[in-house]
Amino acid sequence: MLTRIDHIGIACRDLETTVDFYRRTFGFEVCHEEVNEEQGIHEAMLRINRTDDGESSYLQLMEPIRPESVVARFIEKRGEGVHHIAFGSADVASVVADAETAGITPLLEGLRRGSMGSLVTFLHPRDCHGVLTELVQAAPTAHAPTSPPEA
Amino acid sequence: MLTRIDHIGIACRDLETTVDFYRRTFGFEVCHEEVNEEQGIHEAMLRINRTDDGESSYLQLMEPIRPESVVARFIEKRGEGVHHIAFGSADVASVVADAETAGITPLLEGLRRGSMGSLVTFLHPRDCHGVLTELVQAAPTAHAPTSPPEA
Repeated sequence: MLTRIDHIGIACRDLETTVDFYRRTFGFEVCHEEVNEEQGIHEAMLRINRTDDGESSYLQLMEPIRPESVVARFIEKRGEGVHHIAFGSADVASVVADAETAGITPLLEGLRRGSMGSLVTFLHPRDCHGVLTELVQAAPTAHAPTSPPEA
Repeated sequence: MLTRIDHIGIACRDLETTVDFYRRTFGFEVCHEEVNEEQGIHEAMLRINRTDDGESSYLQLMEPIRPESVVARFIEKRGEGVHHIAFGSADVASVVADAETAGITPLLEGLRRGSMGSLVTFLHPRDCHGVLTELVQAAPTAHAPTSPPEA
């Protein structure tokens, strides 16, 4: 079951400039930054709000680090802008199974590593009325209660 | 101050088919439907989650009702897909003032009626790194406590 808008993924030419735009215009701050070598992006996460499933909704700003990466080709073709949207679930494998029952095959086999240690997969825009759709399971450590020390 | 992702606006050719896609694939349900004559759209709102500012995040599915509407021209040019993103505030006029201080002029003068009685304005993609950005103030009645009857 999908329980939140996890993030909106925005392709940008220059991460620093775009982060500065969101800070200056709307007061949004970066809460996390990383390079995802597999996806070929340098990304910044801006937390916008908490959600009632105990997680959060973010903007994900993505600058390509290679000219042949998916995001670089997106910008070349369409310019900067919204690249994908992502919904969150506590059990993304079951959401994938439901999607497959509905006749949709994910773009990737199995789950990959997404932002902040999450597990993710993607559904092709041709299967989702033109929207590249990511399914996200947040890292369990993000909001889990601290374990008591071993006795 | 912007306190939530209010919605993601998705342009579609056929509202009924697209609503059915989101219901069948992800279990999302329509919580509101209306025609906005000014914007030239027939829209359905799907609530995805509640947000920690007391409001909600939605998908807004939009089918054009006129071939010359903005959404119809978007689909003609780019196909179905994400048309805009929207952030919510309890005081959208102050957010507009902040944006103007940052050098951004809204697309519309004053505020217009958005979904579910909200007040909205838009910032041009050329000012927002390629993203058509809507600013939303939810209708006060949506979550306001019931007024006591006059004594």
